Amino acid sequence: MKNFLSTAALLLAAYSAAAQPTGPLTARLDKVSLTFALNSSGQPTYSVSYNQKPVIQPSRLGISLAEGPGFDAVLEVAGSETKDVDETWQPVWGEVKNIRNHYQQLTVHLRQPQAPGRQLDVVFRVFADGVGFRYEFPQQDKLQYFTVSDEQTQFNLPADHKAFWIPGDYDSNEYSYTTSRLSQVNTTPIAVIQHRAAPTTVQTPLMLKTDDGLYVNIHEAALVNYPAMFVNVDPKTFALKAQLVPSATGAKAYLQTPEHTPWRTVVVADNAPAILASKLILNLNEPSKIADTGWIKPQKFVGVWWEMHVNKASWNYSDASNIKLAGTDWSTLKPNGRHGANTANVKRYIDFAARHGLQSVLVEGWNVGWEDWYGNWKEEVFDFVTPYPDFDVQELQRYAAAKSVKLIMHHETSGSVTNYERRQDEALRFMKQHGYDAVKTGYVGRIIPRGEHHDGQWMVNHFNRTAENMARQQIMVDMHESVRPTGLHRTYPNWLANEAARGNEFNAWSSGNLPEHETILPFTRLMGGPMDYTPGIFQIKLESWNPAQNKGRQVHTTLAKQLALYVTMYSPLQMAADLPEAYEQHLDAFQFIKDVAVDWDDTRILAAEPGEYVSIARQAKGTDEWYLGAITDEQARSQTLKLDFLKPGQRYTATIYADAPGAHWEKNPMAYQIRQVKVDSKSVLKLQLAPGGGAAVSIKPVKK
Amino acid sequence: MKNFLSTAALLLAAYSAAAQPTGPLTARLDKVSLTFALNSSGQPTYSVSYNQKPVIQPSRLGISLAEGPGFDAVLEVAGSETKDVDETWQPVWGEVKNIRNHYQQLTVHLRQPQAPGRQLDVVFRVFADGVGFRYEFPQQDKLQYFTVSDEQTQFNLPADHKAFWIPGDYDSNEYSYTTSRLSQVNTTPIAVIQHRAAPTTVQTPLMLKTDDGLYVNIHEAALVNYPAMFVNVDPKTFALKAQLVPSATGAKAYLQTPEHTPWRTVVVADNAPAILASKLILNLNEPSKIADTGWIKPQKFVGVWWEMHVNKASWNYSDASNIKLAGTDWSTLKPNGRHGANTANVKRYIDFAARHGLQSVLVEGWNVGWEDWYGNWKEEVFDFVTPYPDFDVQELQRYAAAKSVKLIMHHETSGSVTNYERRQDEALRFMKQHGYDAVKTGYVGRIIPRGEHHDGQWMVNHFNRTAENMARQQIMVDMHESVRPTGLHRTYPNWLANEAARGNEFNAWSSGNLPEHETILPFTRLMGGPMDYTPGIFQIKLESWNPAQNKGRQVHTTLAKQLALYVTMYSPLQMAADLPEAYEQHLDAFQFIKDVAVDWDDTRILAAEPGEYVSIARQAKGTDEWYLGAITDEQARSQTLKLDFLKPGQRYTATIYADAPGAHWEKNPMAYQIRQVKVDSKSVLKLQLAPGGGAAVSIKPVKK
Repeated sequence: MKNFLSTAALLLAAYSAAAQPTGPLTARLDKVSLTFALNSSGQPTYSVSYNQKPVIQPSRLGISLAEGPGFDAVLEVAGSETKDVDETWQPVWGEVKNIRNHYQQLTVHLRQPQAPGRQLDVVFRVFADGVGFRYEFPQQDKLQYFTVSDEQTQFNLPADHKAFWIPGDYDSNEYSYTTSRLSQVNTTPIAVIQHRAAPTTVQTPLMLKTDDGLYVNIHEAALVNYPAMFVNVDPKTFALKAQLVPSATGAKAYLQTPEHTPWRTVVVADNAPAILASKLILNLNEPSKIADTGWIKPQKFVGVWWEMHVNKASWNYSDASNIKLAGTDWSTLKPNGRHGANTANVKRYIDFAARHGLQSVLVEGWNVGWEDWYGNWKEEVFDFVTPYPDFDVQELQRYAAAKSVKLIMHHETSGSVTNYERRQDEALRFMKQHGYDAVKTGYVGRIIPRGEHHDGQWMVNHFNRTAENMARQQIMVDMHESVRPTGLHRTYPNWLANEAARGNEFNAWSSGNLPEHETILPFTRLMGGPMDYTPGIFQIKLESWNPAQNKGRQVHTTLAKQLALYVTMYSPLQMAADLPEAYEQHLDAFQFIKDVAVDWDDTRILAAEPGEYVSIARQAKGTDEWYLGAITDEQARSQTLKLDFLKPGQRYTATIYADAPGAHWEKNPMAYQIRQVKVDSKSVLKLQLAPGGGAAVSIKPVKK
Repeated sequence: MKNFLSTAALLLAAYSAAAQPTGPLTARLDKVSLTFALNSSGQPTYSVSYNQKPVIQPSRLGISLAEGPGFDAVLEVAGSETKDVDETWQPVWGEVKNIRNHYQQLTVHLRQPQAPGRQLDVVFRVFADGVGFRYEFPQQDKLQYFTVSDEQTQFNLPADHKAFWIPGDYDSNEYSYTTSRLSQVNTTPIAVIQHRAAPTTVQTPLMLKTDDGLYVNIHEAALVNYPAMFVNVDPKTFALKAQLVPSATGAKAYLQTPEHTPWRTVVVADNAPAILASKLILNLNEPSKIADTGWIKPQKFVGVWWEMHVNKASWNYSDASNIKLAGTDWSTLKPNGRHGANTANVKRYIDFAARHGLQSVLVEGWNVGWEDWYGNWKEEVFDFVTPYPDFDVQELQRYAAAKSVKLIMHHETSGSVTNYERRQDEALRFMKQHGYDAVKTGYVGRIIPRGEHHDGQWMVNHFNRTAENMARQQIMVDMHESVRPTGLHRTYPNWLANEAARGNEFNAWSSGNLPEHETILPFTRLMGGPMDYTPGIFQIKLESWNPAQNKGRQVHTTLAKQLALYVTMYSPLQMAADLPEAYEQHLDAFQFIKDVAVDWDDTRILAAEPGEYVSIARQAKGTDEWYLGAITDEQARSQTLKLDFLKPGQRYTATIYADAPGAHWEKNPMAYQIRQVKVDSKSVLKLQLAPGGGAAVSIKPVKK
């Protein structure tokens, strides 16, 4: 990585540091301007504009300390510095090969005017597509160990924007999005999964659209040693205030200088695709801490998983209840005959993966404890090393290796994190001994330590520590029910994906996901990082698997849209989530899943509007192949997409997996058609998307 | 172990279970009677008498559940059973070779009269010296996972007894005892160390003396998967109510059927020595879970420890502050030149132990993290595997082995238990690799998980799990700042000792321990198990080590009393706590510490009165040697002790380490004299104890 720091910027920094500024301080890049000022009460504030339009009106900055006095009253400016950075770096894997990190930085040194005279820095980075800022607590005699009782950061929005939001729940983000004006935000009617914050508190990433044509996204970057930030909406003033997820004691964060908060991010653009193309959050994260990354492999996988969701199989081996982990002789439990993770069934998945060139097989329910794993706030649920009697770990290790397929480990914690932490070393040794190099973790249920929340500081530290432990052991990880990501996959590229949102699985359980759901996720959840959404469900009507238990249940997309999701929902880890027998019936459509890449040299956001449609084209890593996905909400749409990103002069075969005429997510979801056309960089592709539909296109060079 | 269960008892049990009792149910053994009855409100109650004197008047039983309805309202008796047990067992180590476990058991099956009709059993065991009872929650459909919100157990005392108590503090029991009438219990004037319960809440073991000559001790046995019980005193009615230590959520215990509470114990006798001789609490614990116990070694040790207390050395290697465990290069810290745990100094202790036949050397401060280890509620303080630059772990392993001395590991957690748990496996591997087979653990400070308490269910489980982990690795453990013991050393005999009370160290820090302190501890703290009190301080006036920092500080006993403590304060793990240079100046007195045993075939409580004096004789394991200790409070006393426990016809040499004339704990503490006399079983020993003094006697057979 190179740091193009100009001499002029250095000189400017030196000058500002010496001066005692009295007026506002500013930083700007292209159309984005940032202003820092003390307000009439002497409190620090900031504001942001885009092309002279106000994005954030003057808004308070500040941190309250349990040990008072904190940084929430009058502060004075002790100095400031600016610097310019323009560098380019290469992610280990990602949507593009090169990422430009170009910003102007303004550091404001603040000080309590009275004793004890504690110091706080606010650092702003102004990019062409928004602003990031964070609080830094320098090493100082008067502030060593301290407790954040509240964060005063505000985002004062100038008008009653349209917002795409989910309710503030300290323990879950698995919600459908509500689209409303800020003045209408009210989470009360929503059935909350675990722990509701105030009725006007919503989660980030929060996507906003203004009436004067701006798109604004508020989130955070590099969430380390701090709780997640929610925002509380004032429905009258449209001011958002940071709402940190509390610890078991009610305090927000226990810190020690030198320390800093995560970056608060405001991504802004005058068009929606630019939001999706933003690398601001990733740029605000630290470079990879992993030196040798050769063992990290983006991949596609199948799994013993969806068959449990559609009630064809069970995670649990027996139907016993009230089990105790210690002292239970699992071999004496009566099998229920529906256990999915049995050796023969896993071999069937290994065979399928090998036959179709998928890298790996996830197996859930392999280990003892699933009989009453959830909902009891129980500490000792799983031990992570004891297979059920019908899961032959040695034989499957041998069988998978012979077929060149990897098995993906599964560590469901049931939210009992103390139990997982004390067993994690042993669990990772077990993995390495048995040939596993990737793990899906899960945190369903209430957290133990009791009183802590999924999104609080303690759990944030757990997730990050787990990513680090895994990296040390050269293990890739995919975390479910974790805090939503903030770009830390730059720092820990073995952290391939998270769930941390409402995934495809809800289509099997509940009223499902609205057809618009996948057009909002890229603007919200995915701003922080890849999601293990588990696309690729072909058997849309779930009744066909088990009519009695799946009555009326179906996936809320067309089959073609499921294919498109492999492109529109970026992840280096993509599941082919349906059952092998579902794919065997549609091998022509399955060809797209076999073909589509999971790592990319380039990405073009061709068209996008949150809640309506998303069309994206991506160039497969190290090749001249492109893959295109286009999806729509419940409205049928036609998408006219220029292929001008193709290499000029090169002819390509485009294989188009589209909704067939008459397709409809509810009435006729599995009607698809596949056609091939020759295209080049001058071609325009016109795709007809059915209601709740989509299209997937592979574009491969014609060999000369 | 044999179980002498009579046929008669079995027949009786069968009969009672069939009947539907309507009146009171009783059980009795010798002078102790127990009565169970439903009161006029239909609530279960119990009462206890001793030789027809009321000990516990009818008192409520019951458990409240967060999931209500609980067992705190009307219950009906669904049946009952009794059985008689009379068996004898041998502890792995202990005060006596054989322990008789003789009791009558009454089990009362209770049931909610209305739906859901949940079931609760109360099991009473009536011994000749008291009663134990516990609640048992049988496996049942209507009660699987449940939360104890409160325990209703009461101990209604018939009069305003004299009580020896310490204040209820959920996180500490390191207090001086207050002696008062029950009506005068008020903890408000006492400076509380961590977290005060109600002002009338005191801890157990609670020692009581009645005006009509009974001695009553209230505590609990086998504290497993449940919080510690404190008692709240009603100063008007003299009713005590169980007060369970809360979890972070405020709930008391998270349980799953089948489960039971610890035993609530009432030891009663008409003389004080019988209280000290009671094995009731030990009998209520489960037999050893460790099959091979050959590696468990009662032992005496010295340690790099007291020199830190007397400000001659420091735990920390440097005087830096605001350290972060991760990222600190310890080799670059500036040494403060006072670090006790340096290789040369440890060798000096190894040499001393080897020269005098002591088994082991404890070293505190060997590992990085002591610079600001305490008081910051910081999670990552210690890693338990990284020595300071001046502590050569390999060289010391070699050196100690060559001298046949063992090193004792030290794991101070600073209360950060999540950190310890996730590192414990690695820490134990480090121990085994480096030849350590014993560890002293410490839990100074506020607990992490934040909101949990030292004496709550989560920590109780931690302590027990740690003892189990250690046993699995064949490691002996001595826990400091743990919950006070409840006889679990029967079950885990590798759990040699705990601190869990105000130890000798307070004499170095504060106003110290009152001269009466050690005469109360056997009646309170030691009822639950051995204490690592760290006796043996010879340099009573601490100013001699470091006048500037130890001004006015001294141990509140005579030197001779320090010797007596090796007998009166039972522990299989006894420290010779003073510095080698202190012992070198008094090798004649030190001879007693060298000689005294730490494991016993027999124990005789010769005389005792709580708060006044204790005289005990013990027979060393597998020998005909006896050791006798006699201590007094601030009053001078003469003790006339019959040696009728000696083998008739055998002549012995008694070496008497006594206070010299004019000795006084404050004015002349180091005046001792040593004399030898020949004694036999007909001898009577008359010992003069100075104010705050004591005497120690070794009695060895005269070789023929």
